[in-house]
Amino acid sequence: MNKITGLIAATFAAYHTDGSLNNTLIPALVEKMIDDGVAGVFICGTNGEGPNLTVAERMEVAEAYVAAAAGRILVLVHVGHSSIAESRKLAAHAERIGADAISAVSAFYFKPSDVGNMVDCMAEIASAAPNTPFYYYHIPALTGVAIDMVTFLELAGPRIPNLAGIKYTAATLHEYQACVSYQNGRFDVLFGYDELLLPALAVGARGAIGSTYNFAAPLYLQVMKLFAAGLRDEAAAMQLHAVNMVRNLVKFPPIPAQRAIMSHLGFDLGPCRLPLTPLKTSQADDLIAALGSDGFFDAVDQNYQLIHSEHEN
Amino acid sequence: MNKITGLIAATFAAYHTDGSLNNTLIPALVEKMIDDGVAGVFICGTNGEGPNLTVAERMEVAEAYVAAAAGRILVLVHVGHSSIAESRKLAAHAERIGADAISAVSAFYFKPSDVGNMVDCMAEIASAAPNTPFYYYHIPALTGVAIDMVTFLELAGPRIPNLAGIKYTAATLHEYQACVSYQNGRFDVLFGYDELLLPALAVGARGAIGSTYNFAAPLYLQVMKLFAAGLRDEAAAMQLHAVNMVRNLVKFPPIPAQRAIMSHLGFDLGPCRLPLTPLKTSQADDLIAALGSDGFFDAVDQNYQLIHSEHEN
Amino acid sequence: MNKITGLIAATFAAYHTDGSLNNTLIPALVEKMIDDGVAGVFICGTNGEGPNLTVAERMEVAEAYVAAAAGRILVLVHVGHSSIAESRKLAAHAERIGADAISAVSAFYFKPSDVGNMVDCMAEIASAAPNTPFYYYHIPALTGVAIDMVTFLELAGPRIPNLAGIKYTAATLHEYQACVSYQNGRFDVLFGYDELLLPALAVGARGAIGSTYNFAAPLYLQVMKLFAAGLRDEAAAMQLHAVNMVRNLVKFPPIPAQRAIMSHLGFDLGPCRLPLTPLKTSQADDLIAALGSDGFFDAVDQNYQLIHSEHEN
Amino acid sequence: MNKITGLIAATFAAYHTDGSLNNTLIPALVEKMIDDGVAGVFICGTNGEGPNLTVAERMEVAEAYVAAAAGRILVLVHVGHSSIAESRKLAAHAERIGADAISAVSAFYFKPSDVGNMVDCMAEIASAAPNTPFYYYHIPALTGVAIDMVTFLELAGPRIPNLAGIKYTAATLHEYQACVSYQNGRFDVLFGYDELLLPALAVGARGAIGSTYNFAAPLYLQVMKLFAAGLRDEAAAMQLHAVNMVRNLVKFPPIPAQRAIMSHLGFDLGPCRLPLTPLKTSQADDLIAALGSDGFFDAVDQNYQLIHSEHEN
Repeated sequence: MNKITGLIAATFAAYHTDGSLNNTLIPALVEKMIDDGVAGVFICGTNGEGPNLTVAERMEVAEAYVAAAAGRILVLVHVGHSSIAESRKLAAHAERIGADAISAVSAFYFKPSDVGNMVDCMAEIASAAPNTPFYYYHIPALTGVAIDMVTFLELAGPRIPNLAGIKYTAATLHEYQACVSYQNGRFDVLFGYDELLLPALAVGARGAIGSTYNFAAPLYLQVMKLFAAGLRDEAAAMQLHAVNMVRNLVKFPPIPAQRAIMSHLGFDLGPCRLPLTPLKTSQADDLIAALGSDGFFDAVDQNYQLIHSEHEN
Repeated sequence: MNKITGLIAATFAAYHTDGSLNNTLIPALVEKMIDDGVAGVFICGTNGEGPNLTVAERMEVAEAYVAAAAGRILVLVHVGHSSIAESRKLAAHAERIGADAISAVSAFYFKPSDVGNMVDCMAEIASAAPNTPFYYYHIPALTGVAIDMVTFLELAGPRIPNLAGIKYTAATLHEYQACVSYQNGRFDVLFGYDELLLPALAVGARGAIGSTYNFAAPLYLQVMKLFAAGLRDEAAAMQLHAVNMVRNLVKFPPIPAQRAIMSHLGFDLGPCRLPLTPLKTSQADDLIAALGSDGFFDAVDQNYQLIHSEHEN
Repeated sequence: MNKITGLIAATFAAYHTDGSLNNTLIPALVEKMIDDGVAGVFICGTNGEGPNLTVAERMEVAEAYVAAAAGRILVLVHVGHSSIAESRKLAAHAERIGADAISAVSAFYFKPSDVGNMVDCMAEIASAAPNTPFYYYHIPALTGVAIDMVTFLELAGPRIPNLAGIKYTAATLHEYQACVSYQNGRFDVLFGYDELLLPALAVGARGAIGSTYNFAAPLYLQVMKLFAAGLRDEAAAMQLHAVNMVRNLVKFPPIPAQRAIMSHLGFDLGPCRLPLTPLKTSQADDLIAALGSDGFFDAVDQNYQLIHSEHEN
Repeated sequence: MNKITGLIAATFAAYHTDGSLNNTLIPALVEKMIDDGVAGVFICGTNGEGPNLTVAERMEVAEAYVAAAAGRILVLVHVGHSSIAESRKLAAHAERIGADAISAVSAFYFKPSDVGNMVDCMAEIASAAPNTPFYYYHIPALTGVAIDMVTFLELAGPRIPNLAGIKYTAATLHEYQACVSYQNGRFDVLFGYDELLLPALAVGARGAIGSTYNFAAPLYLQVMKLFAAGLRDEAAAMQLHAVNMVRNLVKFPPIPAQRAIMSHLGFDLGPCRLPLTPLKTSQADDLIAALGSDGFFDAVDQNYQLIHSEHEN
């Protein structure tokens, strides 16, 4: 697989009101992603509540996305689990159904003691899907595992034949730049912190995975375009919409808050699973109102129109 | 179930050299526990690498222990999992096979946002085994979830009909005392920090769950006996053996280190699973030598002899 | 100096309403301490807002306490400071005015990198008062410096001729026991976590320094007496008063909360210094009411009466 | 004062071999800064070991810098201290001697409980130098105080008449962008994380304060120039020199490591003060060799030449 450019949406889980999975919503979500210009989906990750699902459910979700995407956009399957044995089952399954790539967070109950141990863990997972590109999913704020990523690449490069790169979800852009630049850009280091997309572009990001790309991809695509065109102030002004949106989001639990936005946009994904809980109606209303008065939805719409009018010409 | 008194050993997983489970070792382990005077076993917990096992494997381990114990000692089954849906499967299974109690850590990928949310999570797990006593397993150093345990009891008491108490693994003995004393001792608050057993006794502990009770129960039983007899200095001197042993242990990764001790005592439990790795031979030798020169093994043996000679009389 | 037995009150700073020091209150505070049976005072520490005072102010406070104590109770002067150069001035001054001991926390802006570096820092402070016993003040929750205290004693013993011991303020009673027992009890390891006094006694504590000894010493002295008499349940019941009192305290910022208690007892110590702020009147009222309805003040009074009636006989 | 553009070097303390201050080195350091193109110096901060110095020493350093700068470059004086009373003395002194601005970190022993409390603390410090611009120094990794900086600006704006802005030392560039953009850029938000200078430029940084500007200012000035010229890849390539240099630095304690670089460049600043300790000679040699083989010194020199040849034309 070549390096991924553009945006990968870290999709949400969809539930019936009783909390069981509702995978019938997946085709419509995939169409929205394609319409919004994203390059792929990252499924069963943090945003997709992978760790809240059973192994069997995760496999069902993966199958539904691969089927819906039908090769039109990439499908990256997160297979991280506290049990590496379960991770390996998920990895082998993803390969079998034709996922474009797999990814795994660090084991997160018992935590790797050092980078060598981490590489051993990831090698064991990646080897269960030997013909599928593997991305280590670095998200220290959630896993509590903060190992040096350049050293990871140094050790993992020779150990994991199918290592494609890293899904890098941390604000430490200096380390990110060092990873992007490692061995003249040998690895694909996808950036995972949406509100930092513009500064990440400045140090070499070309592809990104994130949750807000589910509902704001056109805005971010415009950031990328303005940056590429050398329009620095305009790019910063556009990115500021994302920064302000995320500042509004994080006044609430972020995953439920984003699900409320999806609902506002016509995609009712149902409740979420404990320990996550949906926003209260009044909270959702406050959030939508705040985003509206900031001009966030208008900004997304305008950029959506822009993309589509350009495509038509 | 009445309150548990005495010691519960948090047992280890047993593997073949290829890393697959070797449950044929379980009967011998159970006989050792009975011979050493422990009151029960806590299985598939932290020490038992529960989070490293698949759901199917955890069920096999539980079945093996229930069969081996045959009602002679208690079997407590840890069912905590990052996915509450998987936890519920484990809980229902434990009840079906006749486990004496179940217990669960907090969800540990997504972490409960507050004590009410935590109680909701635990209620969902406990209700899958409604006729089996449930113990919340409080271990903030591993889960990163440090909610107030008295408030937990206040909220969980009316919400979880089968709430038996807490497996309390933290050094905050003031909070522990408040839990033990809550509503005149309504709940069974088992103490989980072996090297603090004596000070826990001073504030009301009567039962304890811990990993070093696998290989040093007679020593700790003597601490309990000396304390009950009012022999304060003697109890402290005996507890100091445990303190020093643990100081030696934690120079190494603690679970592999304890597995090395089990091996030294004739119970070769095989390798462990990533991210855990066995001690190197030289490390194991150093540890055993350090414990030996501190007189730790002799102290355990002497107390073992003492218990058995008393029983014979 | 021999080892300290009994209780040392970590006293509060006293201010005029404009925030300037009001050391005229110190003599009355010292008399209360003597009347309550405490063995000494620890001044300019955390509770005494040492780090909020200027170096000149700290010297004035020290002089006032030494004068008021007049040899009747011990005066321990905290000299810790982010600047070791300032610490040395405070240490030399304390020796000059006849303090019974000095103590210092770790440097807390730049933090010692390891235990050897910490010992070097403490040696530099202690050597400025070479004829005065020195206690390292271990309080990792505030300083963020959590080095192993047994290793500290191993390295500091030969390096700091006037090392008396440690003021140990942490819940890790296993490490505390290891320190108390180190080289057959060579060092004086004073316990600093009031709500854990009873369990600390169980592992060898004989002296303690704490803030709640300012207003509840008779209760804690009774805990010590009951424990020494082998009355375990009675000692635990008495300690539970302290545990519950602290649980009430920590619903508020603890130092301002304790100052509100002092005010309730007739010792109006004035405001405190930023970043600390006094409780609001309604908060203070709630706190006092909660303590009153728990029977805390009655318990202190009864034990005060008990001590004084015994002394009269 | 207008907003600061360009680079401010956070200078080092200079000592005699006995550890006493050696302020005679300051004039030469100032000349180097001017020659390297920096816009000012930030003194007695983290890098300048402010918290290791006495209040009297900090005043001496400030006087020496103001005299040496003689109005040719800006002098910003850090006045943060664990005691706000001492901070106020330092602030008043800085104003008296004609410093261009003052700055203070959060109180760091007792930590502000929330943003309102923090603003109260900073207002008390800033009001002691009412005619001097004040910058809050945000450095959560060192102080442990991580309050939201936009909220700080909201509350501090009306409370602190001389509030100029923030010295922002954190990797959270989304929050940084929100601060820079707050009220159409009302405040001067200087960026403090050198290895992130380029991505900070992308979100609006125009001025920066940092320690590596002492010895690599020409390189960073070139980053700024390339970025302004729209040469994105060239700017990233130049910034990568800084990223790699910092990766080498942080293998050692960073302040001593940078002092070793200064020594290599002909500025022997003497030892440092505990708890900091100088690099061993072999460590310093390793560091210098690593930087040399990475081409770091050459890159700085080439950019230095470039600046000076341009100036000559």
